[in-house]
Amino acid sequence: MIQLYGSPLSGNTHKIRMALTFLGLPWDERLTDAAARRSDAFAALTPMRQIPLFIDGDFTLRDSQAILVFLAARHRPGDWDGRTPEERGEIHIWLSHAANEIANGPAALRLARKFGLAIAEDQAAQVTARILPVVEAHLADRDWLAGDRLTIADLAAGPYLALMGDAGIDVAAWPAIRDWTRRIAALPDFPAMPGWPAAPIEGAR
Amino acid sequence: MIQLYGSPLSGNTHKIRMALTFLGLPWDERLTDAAARRSDAFAALTPMRQIPLFIDGDFTLRDSQAILVFLAARHRPGDWDGRTPEERGEIHIWLSHAANEIANGPAALRLARKFGLAIAEDQAAQVTARILPVVEAHLADRDWLAGDRLTIADLAAGPYLALMGDAGIDVAAWPAIRDWTRRIAALPDFPAMPGWPAAPIEGAR
Repeated sequence: MIQLYGSPLSGNTHKIRMALTFLGLPWDERLTDAAARRSDAFAALTPMRQIPLFIDGDFTLRDSQAILVFLAARHRPGDWDGRTPEERGEIHIWLSHAANEIANGPAALRLARKFGLAIAEDQAAQVTARILPVVEAHLADRDWLAGDRLTIADLAAGPYLALMGDAGIDVAAWPAIRDWTRRIAALPDFPAMPGWPAAPIEGAR
Repeated sequence: MIQLYGSPLSGNTHKIRMALTFLGLPWDERLTDAAARRSDAFAALTPMRQIPLFIDGDFTLRDSQAILVFLAARHRPGDWDGRTPEERGEIHIWLSHAANEIANGPAALRLARKFGLAIAEDQAAQVTARILPVVEAHLADRDWLAGDRLTIADLAAGPYLALMGDAGIDVAAWPAIRDWTRRIAALPDFPAMPGWPAAPIEGAR
């Protein structure tokens, strides 16, 4: 059985929850709160002390993007990770944004606003202001971040853009992003996440 | 002919220069300095205004990690990007670190110290202090970041860790990282980069 160290309100954990649910894979989730992450036992499992942490038998993998890449290569090769080298490259633009600008922008602001963490809010707001227009413009004329279907680009970038409201960002100002996060939430078996807007999309495009 | 928009002292550009050189692919490099990056013409090519930018015919790709992923999938599939799903996942840990901690840590400090850019140095120093021990410990008992050979993990993470001296970091304090960057520099056809230590490695391990 897959072991997933995570936390209910962690968007990074939710990336993996979505992937496992869509793949129909069962998992055992181990609640790993801030105190658990500071423990020596957890540091022995993963050096950055971050969740999610994925363990399946003797295979351990950290980093939510890396776990998505592994799951795609194992279970949806040539689909979730791109049908062509070109598409794979385009998918990875969004994995990089998920690892950097989205993590250090909207996700960091959410940590400050929702959980009261002391972070450099000015810098997080600057990163947010730089990345959101790029995502919004990109989604203005397409349904998914890369290709013509859900890929790990959407799974990686989705949570912290769906949870922008928690970060104090006016979701209505970014309608293409909002509609795309609702599109993800409308997929069969989508696992609910507190704060992820799931209103039905009216009409087709 | 491949067009690479870049800059001689850009470590992100050097990731792609290394890949293209090792692959034996010719390219035309277009010097893209800070002024060029601020131009509307460049923004029309790439929304984040970042280098490197890779163009081959009608295919355009931004983000140094994404370009490496594309080149591996196109030219070294199952090798540079992992022989197994597990290895591919492990490689992507380092692509995420390259996109986030290495970019926002040592690479950001280098921008401040070598080029005088105004960045949040305290935060960059904190990120640097968090990532370097993880890389050093990881490389203590292996030659390459993932697998038993060069992969895009090394190409992505290498430049800004090799150029730590430019960032004011004491390279001698991180001997496993230093030896690994020299190992990359000792590969046949390695393209030189100012600041990248290339002293021969004494003996074999």
